Amino acid sequence: MKDTIAAAGERIERIQSRLASLDVEGILFFDLTNIRYLVGFMGSAGILFIGKDSVILTVDGRYTTQAGRETRGCEIIESSDNIRGISAKISDSPLRSLGFEASAISFEDYSKLKEKTNFATLKPLSDELNSLRIIKTKGEIDLLKGATSIAADALQKTVEIIGPGTTEKNIALDLEFQMRKGGGEKPSFDTIVASGPNSALPHARPQSRSIERGDFVIIDYGAVYEGYHSDETCTFAVGRVTEEQKKIYNIVKDAHDRALDAVKAGIPCKDVDEVARGAIERAGYGQYFSHGTGHGVGLDVHEAPKLSRGSTDYLEEGMVVTVEPGIYIPDAYGIRIEDMALVGKDGCEILTRTSKDLRIL
Amino acid sequence: MKDTIAAAGERIERIQSRLASLDVEGILFFDLTNIRYLVGFMGSAGILFIGKDSVILTVDGRYTTQAGRETRGCEIIESSDNIRGISAKISDSPLRSLGFEASAISFEDYSKLKEKTNFATLKPLSDELNSLRIIKTKGEIDLLKGATSIAADALQKTVEIIGPGTTEKNIALDLEFQMRKGGGEKPSFDTIVASGPNSALPHARPQSRSIERGDFVIIDYGAVYEGYHSDETCTFAVGRVTEEQKKIYNIVKDAHDRALDAVKAGIPCKDVDEVARGAIERAGYGQYFSHGTGHGVGLDVHEAPKLSRGSTDYLEEGMVVTVEPGIYIPDAYGIRIEDMALVGKDGCEILTRTSKDLRIL
Repeated sequence: MKDTIAAAGERIERIQSRLASLDVEGILFFDLTNIRYLVGFMGSAGILFIGKDSVILTVDGRYTTQAGRETRGCEIIESSDNIRGISAKISDSPLRSLGFEASAISFEDYSKLKEKTNFATLKPLSDELNSLRIIKTKGEIDLLKGATSIAADALQKTVEIIGPGTTEKNIALDLEFQMRKGGGEKPSFDTIVASGPNSALPHARPQSRSIERGDFVIIDYGAVYEGYHSDETCTFAVGRVTEEQKKIYNIVKDAHDRALDAVKAGIPCKDVDEVARGAIERAGYGQYFSHGTGHGVGLDVHEAPKLSRGSTDYLEEGMVVTVEPGIYIPDAYGIRIEDMALVGKDGCEILTRTSKDLRIL
Repeated sequence: MKDTIAAAGERIERIQSRLASLDVEGILFFDLTNIRYLVGFMGSAGILFIGKDSVILTVDGRYTTQAGRETRGCEIIESSDNIRGISAKISDSPLRSLGFEASAISFEDYSKLKEKTNFATLKPLSDELNSLRIIKTKGEIDLLKGATSIAADALQKTVEIIGPGTTEKNIALDLEFQMRKGGGEKPSFDTIVASGPNSALPHARPQSRSIERGDFVIIDYGAVYEGYHSDETCTFAVGRVTEEQKKIYNIVKDAHDRALDAVKAGIPCKDVDEVARGAIERAGYGQYFSHGTGHGVGLDVHEAPKLSRGSTDYLEEGMVVTVEPGIYIPDAYGIRIEDMALVGKDGCEILTRTSKDLRIL
């Protein structure tokens, strides 16, 4: 997380400069990914307060030493109960108005926070903070490229073992092992390997099922590198492919290509979804494309913006998004094709590195 | 999840039989682990409603087919917005009083739910549901034993590569690979391998640091088997051990053994913590034991009850808990020793399988 430490000062100032317009005197952060982004702390529990003149991180005893090592420009306090600890600390110089990350605190914790901070008005912040990490810096893009490289190199090795008789579980295991060997911290999410009829489930878990000739195999996977996630889906054919399968593959591929062509700064995210969805609908398979077209990727594998029908976001230079249309025919087979793209002024740069042309293994 | 499917009917009835005493006509579940426990659904998004006469699961289009396959006795509805979908569905036969899992819904989603269910009074349920999965059935205990076996077999293999020159990262990678090869679905959590001074951080992430003679190496790890987690910590010495190291190891071991001896039905959880903490305090190292003594384990790696100073839980037959005292001397080294124990009427059965006597590799 060299990138975070270098950028921490700038990121905190960015929050501080927005306090007035959000009409709060400080903000409590509960989302651990945002906390990592803002101050560099990588533990599994903690609350961050950013006020006009103070930055305070509260952690429990497991993380006191670690927080001191990982963060800069941040006062660390230890408490066995983070909500109580941070509330007591900020009550030293009470605020009238305190913002909080409404999507990252449970209703239960909110109720407790409210009781402990009765000196302040609590103001839920949601959309206002959603875009916190949405624009990637040069350093972050390099880390995302590191992640996509590790993923591509691993898949190239794993492809060698895919064929009739290999199980979905073994493919997933090999791929995750190759990513770790290649420098990945861990998989971006539970690797999806779905073959034959299982591929008709968009989010299937790998089973003991053995691959058969004539199957499609969907592999949706990613590597984490220095905290940054890759996310990519390849659908391979095994042994042979029918005309029908080839036709449907190419419909998805066409939708994917058109959507990528549409990605550039200034475009509404829902338009990219509409391009992919329109292509699949015109081909007569609209009912089988049951999810959104894409999402942002970074320190989380799913983050803002959303590329879906209802999205109100606009693409901006420096966003990194997935484009991943699919067609899933229940009890038969499914196809999904996914790349990650860096949004530029006049188009996009594809960050994932495996070709999406139909490949028969 | 054969166990869940078999038990689903009984588990749902258990909830339904409690509705009256909780003074609600139905409960909304947001915790995906609880949803898996109650109806068998294993997807990454969904909301479950249990009413007197109805059980309804709402999922988005990615999971409709999967939910149909995985669940029984459960009406599945599809919605691109689960809160909107379930609210509309239950408004068909409006309830006056609707309970919800307060610890598993964000404040943001709660606000939305409140708006969409204005026909009902929302009643936050927290402690009332905390104990939902706290007592393990015979079937669940078998799955937990499956997980601890996979973990033990893997560690036995990985121990072979631990020695001067091996890096923390390589040990973690090998251990995770061995667990997967042995039938584990995935690691229970990010494997901790912390050597030398890093072992003084209770929750360190594996680094590129090479093991040196004279190091302690803390390995805190677990395997997931059919959804059930193991959790175990071994601290090994490498090459040689000083008298001081041996002394401190034995203090932790003694605290661990005494705490395990205290585990039986009817005992307050805080008493088990007190037994471990007292032993470490009496030896003069109380300030270096910076976390609780243990926690429940099951479908989540951390679940109820808590074995800590402030805990108000009591041990009951069929609970499975960890006992994991530690001493961490900043910038020098740390030791943690952890086993999982099944609470019985007159004592406990240790489910983890690796000896905790000091071992020099």
